[in-house]
Amino acid sequence: MNPSGIITITTDFGHKGPFTGVMKGVILGRFPEATVVDLTHEIPAQWPPEAGFWVERAYRYFPAGSVHVAIVDPGVGTERNILIVEHDGHVFLAPDNGLLGLLLSKADDASVMHLDLAKLPSLGIVDTSATFHGRDIFAPVAAEIAAGSLRPADIGEPTMDWIPGWVDEPEVSEAKISGTIVTVDAFGNLISNIDAGLIASFARPVAYIAGRDFAMNETYGRVQPGAYLALINSFGVVEIARAEGNAAEGLGLERGAPITVRDAAGT
Amino acid sequence: MNPSGIITITTDFGHKGPFTGVMKGVILGRFPEATVVDLTHEIPAQWPPEAGFWVERAYRYFPAGSVHVAIVDPGVGTERNILIVEHDGHVFLAPDNGLLGLLLSKADDASVMHLDLAKLPSLGIVDTSATFHGRDIFAPVAAEIAAGSLRPADIGEPTMDWIPGWVDEPEVSEAKISGTIVTVDAFGNLISNIDAGLIASFARPVAYIAGRDFAMNETYGRVQPGAYLALINSFGVVEIARAEGNAAEGLGLERGAPITVRDAAGT
Amino acid sequence: MNPSGIITITTDFGHKGPFTGVMKGVILGRFPEATVVDLTHEIPAQWPPEAGFWVERAYRYFPAGSVHVAIVDPGVGTERNILIVEHDGHVFLAPDNGLLGLLLSKADDASVMHLDLAKLPSLGIVDTSATFHGRDIFAPVAAEIAAGSLRPADIGEPTMDWIPGWVDEPEVSEAKISGTIVTVDAFGNLISNIDAGLIASFARPVAYIAGRDFAMNETYGRVQPGAYLALINSFGVVEIARAEGNAAEGLGLERGAPITVRDAAGT
Repeated sequence: MNPSGIITITTDFGHKGPFTGVMKGVILGRFPEATVVDLTHEIPAQWPPEAGFWVERAYRYFPAGSVHVAIVDPGVGTERNILIVEHDGHVFLAPDNGLLGLLLSKADDASVMHLDLAKLPSLGIVDTSATFHGRDIFAPVAAEIAAGSLRPADIGEPTMDWIPGWVDEPEVSEAKISGTIVTVDAFGNLISNIDAGLIASFARPVAYIAGRDFAMNETYGRVQPGAYLALINSFGVVEIARAEGNAAEGLGLERGAPITVRDAAGT
Repeated sequence: MNPSGIITITTDFGHKGPFTGVMKGVILGRFPEATVVDLTHEIPAQWPPEAGFWVERAYRYFPAGSVHVAIVDPGVGTERNILIVEHDGHVFLAPDNGLLGLLLSKADDASVMHLDLAKLPSLGIVDTSATFHGRDIFAPVAAEIAAGSLRPADIGEPTMDWIPGWVDEPEVSEAKISGTIVTVDAFGNLISNIDAGLIASFARPVAYIAGRDFAMNETYGRVQPGAYLALINSFGVVEIARAEGNAAEGLGLERGAPITVRDAAGT
Repeated sequence: MNPSGIITITTDFGHKGPFTGVMKGVILGRFPEATVVDLTHEIPAQWPPEAGFWVERAYRYFPAGSVHVAIVDPGVGTERNILIVEHDGHVFLAPDNGLLGLLLSKADDASVMHLDLAKLPSLGIVDTSATFHGRDIFAPVAAEIAAGSLRPADIGEPTMDWIPGWVDEPEVSEAKISGTIVTVDAFGNLISNIDAGLIASFARPVAYIAGRDFAMNETYGRVQPGAYLALINSFGVVEIARAEGNAAEGLGLERGAPITVRDAAGT
């Protein structure tokens, strides 16, 4: 990996308190030239799959050689492992609790390691707290990797064993895909885990959610304000939206809702 | 324009999801030395005028040569144009939907262009999504301009035609100004579009909102905790506040409320 | 002080409006190489002690030579002073309203100054607003100090007189410490002002809050999901948490709640 100097951070820490700020302080203390980018800190508390979904969809918009730290970590301080993954020229650091399960299920070529805690003191990482590994382990390790002074193999042990993702992959049958709403954005758009590729062969795809059919459209402004639509969103997955409105509120739906897309040309 | 290397971003994306983060990834991929500053991402969804108000009031606190990207874009992916404005040594990028109407109404000398989409491929901007021009068009164009490798004239066509602002300019009569509350800040301060200059000649200005008169004061701490006051705020417009309290909640008012300031010396 | 080039910002401004953004614009105008880190902007409005608590606990995770600006400032524009404190190789800027009282109570060696407003024009700081000293005074002064072009003594007058903190220090008796919940984080963890050092000699510390006893534990994952626990958190103070849950909501408690820790070995 040729480091870009960029570190992204994804957490469920919210914006109250200095939690992300002190992670940046630790990073800058080891690597003053680091460029740190917040991906989001509003992952639902203790829900790793949403962090994993966004990291998997978002990392490719950063230069190769970036380090992506994702921390949703109800098991912090217990025996849970920490994963260091190299994939597609990027490095990913996260607790081994399913957060990276989605990414790893799509990344056959990934190099996967468990962080060897015994090697932390050699990096000057000592007196780590039991409750904030983001600051005490993830931040300094990410800084060293992003600075080019540490390779994942220097601190990790290769493994074939990790916790899989918590959300089932979409179920694929000939003319129907069954998936899940994995996140809702600030506009109330309902974002599913159904990749555009899964419905690419459908002549007339129709999304079905909460008892209603939604024809696919290109973009929000193509329907009347207030109307609902389905679309392939900018991250390449099926989304249910409401033009100039909030689909989640309008339909009374949340993360976790089941969604299907069928080929109406075949019915 | 002599680039400062600074790009500000103003959106209605909120903080859920990686939307602003991936814009920064795209910017850094083209211009690694960019300094990106978040202005705010809590513009009310789909309400361009508030973004335009804050950009117009805030840009002057950044060094000349900065690029200001503002995206509140219900028409993304439709035929709506994208504006590139040069004014006062700064560059502004926004959808042509009224967002920059206020700025343009005050900037007689501005150079105004419509982005020529046909020129994007020459910048390597291809396969743009229909729903996230912030990442796919605004971010790379802003990066190239901020890096000094692209001039607005290289990618825009001069125009005299743009969508005007959505909020009426204040109505001015001899001893009375009628305006609108254009935004409410985190303290509940009610911020109007009445510029201090409009009431500079008033001997005894009194603000009137929701059936009550409010004398003008210098700052919050000049009245008792809990008391209401009107003042010229730090961005040079009339504001209704409550000392150590929340005026919006206390008065039951929101964005859009009408407000007048009259000269009580003349009554 | 050997400047690190880092400036942290802590405020009660929230994320609506461009308030923190324009502070960064002013900083970058004077010191383009500054690295600005947001600590938090979600301090409860007008409540300095929480800002002071987090600054005191967080500054040490930044490199020495950093400048920490904290603004919760109901008295802005009145006669209240501005403090410039040097301590432990860091510089702190805040209104003199109790915000830095906690830090100063623990920092016997601190150099404490009142900003001399008469010296601001020599820095080109003129036409300061009455309501936004963050942008008009704190940001430019912090930039100059962080850039190494200004020393606190150049702009401050030494003082032994400052407003003390608003929250009482914990009351210490032989086998019992009485403190206060000073903040609640995004997970609903109730964070007290009882330092681990105060209970270090307790053989069997038990926290008592809202009529219930909570045994001390090491980390969240050591108890069953839904169970409550007390712990020494990663900032070295006693905290009441709920594993994979929200202690504040579950117990119906907020900032300000009294908490005691006693040594159950002595009872």
